[in-house]
Amino acid sequence: MTDLAPILSAAEKDFDQSLERLFTLCRIPSISTDPAHAADCDRAAAAIVADLSSMGFDAKARPTPGRPMVVEHYTPKDANAKTPHVLFYGHYDVQPADPLELWKTPPFAPQRRKDADGIERLYGRGTADDKGQFMTFVEAARAWITATGSLPIKATFLIEGEEESGSPSLVPFLKANRKELSCAVAFVCDTNMWDAKTPAITTRLRGLVHEEVTITGPRIDLHSGMYGGPAMNPIRVLSKVIAALHDKTGKITIPGFYDGVSPLPAATKKQWKALKFSDAKFLKEVGLTVPAGEKGKSVLEQIWARPTAEVNGVWGGYTGAGTKTVLPSQAHAKFTFRLVGKQDPEKVLKAFQAFVKARIPKDCKVTFSGRGGGSPATEIPENNPWISKSAAALKAEFKRDAVLMGSGGSIPICRSFKDILGMDSVLVGFGLNDDAIHSPNEKYNLASFQRGIRSWIRIIGGLAS
Amino acid sequence: MTDLAPILSAAEKDFDQSLERLFTLCRIPSISTDPAHAADCDRAAAAIVADLSSMGFDAKARPTPGRPMVVEHYTPKDANAKTPHVLFYGHYDVQPADPLELWKTPPFAPQRRKDADGIERLYGRGTADDKGQFMTFVEAARAWITATGSLPIKATFLIEGEEESGSPSLVPFLKANRKELSCAVAFVCDTNMWDAKTPAITTRLRGLVHEEVTITGPRIDLHSGMYGGPAMNPIRVLSKVIAALHDKTGKITIPGFYDGVSPLPAATKKQWKALKFSDAKFLKEVGLTVPAGEKGKSVLEQIWARPTAEVNGVWGGYTGAGTKTVLPSQAHAKFTFRLVGKQDPEKVLKAFQAFVKARIPKDCKVTFSGRGGGSPATEIPENNPWISKSAAALKAEFKRDAVLMGSGGSIPICRSFKDILGMDSVLVGFGLNDDAIHSPNEKYNLASFQRGIRSWIRIIGGLAS
Repeated sequence: MTDLAPILSAAEKDFDQSLERLFTLCRIPSISTDPAHAADCDRAAAAIVADLSSMGFDAKARPTPGRPMVVEHYTPKDANAKTPHVLFYGHYDVQPADPLELWKTPPFAPQRRKDADGIERLYGRGTADDKGQFMTFVEAARAWITATGSLPIKATFLIEGEEESGSPSLVPFLKANRKELSCAVAFVCDTNMWDAKTPAITTRLRGLVHEEVTITGPRIDLHSGMYGGPAMNPIRVLSKVIAALHDKTGKITIPGFYDGVSPLPAATKKQWKALKFSDAKFLKEVGLTVPAGEKGKSVLEQIWARPTAEVNGVWGGYTGAGTKTVLPSQAHAKFTFRLVGKQDPEKVLKAFQAFVKARIPKDCKVTFSGRGGGSPATEIPENNPWISKSAAALKAEFKRDAVLMGSGGSIPICRSFKDILGMDSVLVGFGLNDDAIHSPNEKYNLASFQRGIRSWIRIIGGLAS
Repeated sequence: MTDLAPILSAAEKDFDQSLERLFTLCRIPSISTDPAHAADCDRAAAAIVADLSSMGFDAKARPTPGRPMVVEHYTPKDANAKTPHVLFYGHYDVQPADPLELWKTPPFAPQRRKDADGIERLYGRGTADDKGQFMTFVEAARAWITATGSLPIKATFLIEGEEESGSPSLVPFLKANRKELSCAVAFVCDTNMWDAKTPAITTRLRGLVHEEVTITGPRIDLHSGMYGGPAMNPIRVLSKVIAALHDKTGKITIPGFYDGVSPLPAATKKQWKALKFSDAKFLKEVGLTVPAGEKGKSVLEQIWARPTAEVNGVWGGYTGAGTKTVLPSQAHAKFTFRLVGKQDPEKVLKAFQAFVKARIPKDCKVTFSGRGGGSPATEIPENNPWISKSAAALKAEFKRDAVLMGSGGSIPICRSFKDILGMDSVLVGFGLNDDAIHSPNEKYNLASFQRGIRSWIRIIGGLAS
């Protein structure tokens, strides 16, 4: 195996530039969910192409019906039939930054700051999710090139720009380029460590279904004095739908919703218990004390192995300053469902739509955004050899065993990699629970970025040996 | 009694100018509920002062802690102890115009248009509520001055600028100027006719209480994958509150809410039945078919004699384009309660707050906007002599008896006139149910404006005789 010391040392010497390359990317508001930011997404793709090209790669921003897909294929000069070919996946799009007024520093003016606790952090939208994360493997590749002139493996980089809006262009792109993109395994850097000192590989991901509901009552907004009483208020109808979604024990009441959800095996339950996860500490960090999910399930089980029905947004009527005595024509809500086990996204979506329809009175209409789709949950076999190699590299860096954990989030891409390209995914990430991804003041610990780069240098070395 | 023919004729000759004076006022976006429009409200007050001054009055825009109060006192040269002194009340502020995209013509570019049904209408925010309405008595006064050189009565004009935001400055202003503003009776032009052919005087008004509720769960917005399940979602808590407000029969479930509500007397019930009001037609106009209020109560009874609990607006989480998998920190809703009979606003507000608090789980906090206040319902004795005189004048104009009706809306000022200044209010207005006040495409029929002016010319004449 190659001596990693000069490569780790090259990364260390170049670290200030690594940070500047990350910040260049974080300054671009590449919000894929908002059409107004389409050009920014394109700019971000171009910036990554420029970054990869600067280390001698021949990357391209490939067009899709949505945002471009950055693709780079690298083959070392001395490659042979035994040289492994792996894919590195990340996404350059970010979540919207609102509510803007809660950011302490502007979301798209990233900065490095030493906080009162003495820890240095990188603040800004995307510093963690996912620009900071995927730049760890990009910078690791750069260190390998700088120190040795090449990578010891064949590598395909695939950085997409629609992850935060459900990756609509990705599946068609994978299908259209099946042969070109099929590798031995995919490495995805979009997950968390167990804690700041303990690395982790995520082997369970929840699936995701989303739906937007609009309920219409009267054909126009009405004066609540003139019509209040006889005219049906769609906010009331919508509230009844939302209120009915969960019973008193936190169980979801949609008929058939739990089809395909198995009880957690006793062995896994025991393993997770051994992690000594503190429910109280987890909730306290976000200002809560009482687990709100299904009664009798631990927080880890709720997040890693149980499905959810969540309202992500609700609006209707007058929401400005002061009062307006309006009886609104419409009420809206955005819902997401996290899936586990063998839950079928299409079936869940249909069951939810039927659940809503059953609660619409004669005088109201309901419409669904009809985006449909969604992705089922994914579980990656823990005896996968790529996982063992990655775990060994992480242990070398952190001097601790990597925790094989679940994640409450959804990375549907893993499912597509398996179904379309036939490859498993290894999820190695360096985020922390308090990174505030999807929230104001998103951050990435400086150590996450630094040790993330070092970890990938070691993983790449391990793959070649 | 003065011959009214020359006065009616003066109004007719001047009608195009009357319309232009109204439009000048309607071009000012005097939205009192939005602090950004404070200067526009001040401009509207100045425009009314200029208008009144142009007919020789000595009007003033008097400062208040909020928007100015336009006040004018007129005494004819030949006034004696028997000359009645009446007050005319209106408001120059208007409702917000959103949703803007639903307006066919810009809300603050008023225009006169003949519609496909051959009826001429004035379109724009405030053409009815209340600029078009109060300008009917201003223009009637102008016609009297033009034709006879004076009014036959002592008149006080009081045009306020905060009616749409609860008139916070009015009560202190009335209290501070009790002697100056006390008249024999107040005429308020802010209500509807029975239908396009039948005039009406409104003798029952519902009271109003409003409250804004904010429920806070986690201290920041969370990723719905990372926290969905264990973290309480405040939208769910708020939805449960809203869903619990009414039972299956449409009754409001807040304990003590109906204290002070009496059953409708059999005689009144009979009277209202004789009006042959069509529930179906009333609902059809706004795209509905099924009365949503208390089962077993007619629509007229629901609007004129029953209280309501209504949600005027709701918002929380991500409400922009596309999806955002957020579990929000906060959810908000604006509520109004229409009161009848002897319901006590303070008691209703406290009972509602207790109802909400009882539904807040341990992990959530609730805050109330704390504006408090509100106004009880008002009923004006139907044997009041000013009502008889007004009814006679309306009959002379419309050749039909004026209907003595109720209104679902609230004009708290009537209550304050009674409590602070000791005078009853006579509510004569020329609006129609389809005026879309508080909605996009607000309008006032040209005939409402024209015959409104003629009616006030007659009422003023009748008061003097």
